Amino acid sequence: MRAVVCHEGKLSVEEIETPQPGPGQVLLKVRRTGICGSDLHARTHSDDTADVTAEVGYDRFMRSTDHVVMGHEFIGEVAEYGPKCRKKWAPGTLVAALPIIRHGETEHLVGLSADAPGAYAEYVVVSEDMTMPVPDGVPLDHAALTEPLSVAVHAVNRGGVSKRDVAVVVGCGPIGLSVILVLKAKGVKTVIASDLSAGRRDLARRCGADIVVDPTVDSPWDIAAKKGKYLTRTGQLLGTAFDAMHILRRVPGLPWWKAIELGDKVGATPKGPVVFECVGVPGMIENIVSGVPLRTRIVVVGVCMESDRFRPAMAINKEVDLRFVIYYDPAEFRTALHLIADGKVDVTPLVTGIVGFDAVADVFEILGGAEHHAKVLIDPSSPVAAL
Amino acid sequence: MRAVVCHEGKLSVEEIETPQPGPGQVLLKVRRTGICGSDLHARTHSDDTADVTAEVGYDRFMRSTDHVVMGHEFIGEVAEYGPKCRKKWAPGTLVAALPIIRHGETEHLVGLSADAPGAYAEYVVVSEDMTMPVPDGVPLDHAALTEPLSVAVHAVNRGGVSKRDVAVVVGCGPIGLSVILVLKAKGVKTVIASDLSAGRRDLARRCGADIVVDPTVDSPWDIAAKKGKYLTRTGQLLGTAFDAMHILRRVPGLPWWKAIELGDKVGATPKGPVVFECVGVPGMIENIVSGVPLRTRIVVVGVCMESDRFRPAMAINKEVDLRFVIYYDPAEFRTALHLIADGKVDVTPLVTGIVGFDAVADVFEILGGAEHHAKVLIDPSSPVAAL
Repeated sequence: MRAVVCHEGKLSVEEIETPQPGPGQVLLKVRRTGICGSDLHARTHSDDTADVTAEVGYDRFMRSTDHVVMGHEFIGEVAEYGPKCRKKWAPGTLVAALPIIRHGETEHLVGLSADAPGAYAEYVVVSEDMTMPVPDGVPLDHAALTEPLSVAVHAVNRGGVSKRDVAVVVGCGPIGLSVILVLKAKGVKTVIASDLSAGRRDLARRCGADIVVDPTVDSPWDIAAKKGKYLTRTGQLLGTAFDAMHILRRVPGLPWWKAIELGDKVGATPKGPVVFECVGVPGMIENIVSGVPLRTRIVVVGVCMESDRFRPAMAINKEVDLRFVIYYDPAEFRTALHLIADGKVDVTPLVTGIVGFDAVADVFEILGGAEHHAKVLIDPSSPVAAL
Repeated sequence: MRAVVCHEGKLSVEEIETPQPGPGQVLLKVRRTGICGSDLHARTHSDDTADVTAEVGYDRFMRSTDHVVMGHEFIGEVAEYGPKCRKKWAPGTLVAALPIIRHGETEHLVGLSADAPGAYAEYVVVSEDMTMPVPDGVPLDHAALTEPLSVAVHAVNRGGVSKRDVAVVVGCGPIGLSVILVLKAKGVKTVIASDLSAGRRDLARRCGADIVVDPTVDSPWDIAAKKGKYLTRTGQLLGTAFDAMHILRRVPGLPWWKAIELGDKVGATPKGPVVFECVGVPGMIENIVSGVPLRTRIVVVGVCMESDRFRPAMAINKEVDLRFVIYYDPAEFRTALHLIADGKVDVTPLVTGIVGFDAVADVFEILGGAEHHAKVLIDPSSPVAAL
């Protein structure tokens, strides 16, 4: 089969052997595969990532010396079952699948390990238990966004966002845009998006962001604080309780301890906005911590691989949460698929290009600094050889 | 009145004017005042802290050039009410008080600002609304621990600890020990305490820690992972869901989407332990993030004033939470007072010294590297002039 192989930072289209499904595995004929920011990063910095993942127990993350077929965001048709499958989906059924597969005791990351070739290829092997059928009538180019949308579903869940919270999305690449889509699908009233690029700000608007900010011109934090009436001065944390108790303690007949309990309820548990860090470069966390109102929950979705510097004292003074996220779980993956299938999110603005294998190497060069691109999909049958 | 005044990093006992309570304020005759780690730090590094707090809207934190009476952990007897008070407590009533006072629109930190002299003195002015009576029969030396215990109550609340969670307390100074006391009072079954000092490990044991670790000998993280059966390898996050779905999808008649939802519930939301960082030196956060099991909630109680370095990629791979905390609210302060008064925590091990004003300067020198000391209290009437 044809596939795009990554080796020593180079991508080349090669004829390789079609993988064979093992027990409980299924071979999919790939229909669409998304090019992920993680792939761009892994092409040139896989060794750094491999070091970190090895430290947390996975020593088969791709290294520069490996020959790897990347691609972990995909949909495909059931082509062939391996042994010991339940064969619930008829051959030809279009399915999405979580990019995780097991060999013995080890879970491998499909498309990010030489041990589990991904979907920059005509065929990919997945675990049968990780497949879900794509409902009829869902455009291929939309269903292919299930995986990145799952990341957003998970991030929004981790943020514990309610409809009345103000949400701020920092960085409007494919993940930031997906977060905006999920927030709006969840009914969050005020979604503020911030990005340096005018093209990506335009995409954020099209994804439903209510307020779109160029951070060199306006402060998303000032806007968020104003919109949500959030506190910004440290003293206010105790100050609101102070006010509430001052009033309540003057209520005749109210015992002092009741006034304290009520005062605490009324005044001392202010919430801040929920921020989604979708950039992943050094300095972003410090930048956000320094800017946000008190009690902000910061969901760190952007993967910063470098060591980073920040000021704990500032985080302490503001009582922020830093909630780090990775992946999603099967239920969140299913939620993402159904958000797309049921029309609750419209991923149309995200897809900015569809190409064949021959264009992939160029696309990797272009996407890094792309102003107007979000998600580029690979269609193995496409003759398009340039973006 | 006599007071200990801090100026340019020096502490001296001076005769100064007794402060006068303003409207809604009350003058307390100080009975006990705790010496806090923040005080030790503020004596020599107040300018750094003042810079950070100014950035979050409080520009009256003490500076080295100020003349400041420190002391924000105290109890005292009602001596004199200012105008516009409700005078609910009879003169002589022993009260605890939150160390916050308002002048105009600004909340001041009592004992950490030249504008709000603290309780290293014979008398201190507090806000009437922030006072709570100490129940009869509570030893003075115990009631005086209300403030640091409030910090612990708040930290434990922020950690969302349940009885079955394994809790790890890193650093067994007064705050770490207070956290241990509160965790045990809450019924948390397994509390692991870690400290480099044998003396402080002994105090941790006396405060009720179930397992006490010298981190140069044993890994608190390995013990926590084993005790709580927590996951430690990244792949396991998805792997547990994988297992659950593998089993469930074989249940006859169970629809695939139901299997996913159930599989998610069964397998994919593992919790980690709750860690309390009570040290506050650069490198501790990275150290903890690198060591902990997956999905650990890290409550950052220790105040690291310096810029710090950590690896977001590690935090991401483990899906940790960093929850930063400051202070407490009035209800938490009341809870702390009543934990002490009702005998639900025994703060006896924490109090390792009681001295008069003349000893304070020496105590500051000694406490920094003290092996066997936790909380030293000032008794204004004590003749003790050395620790």
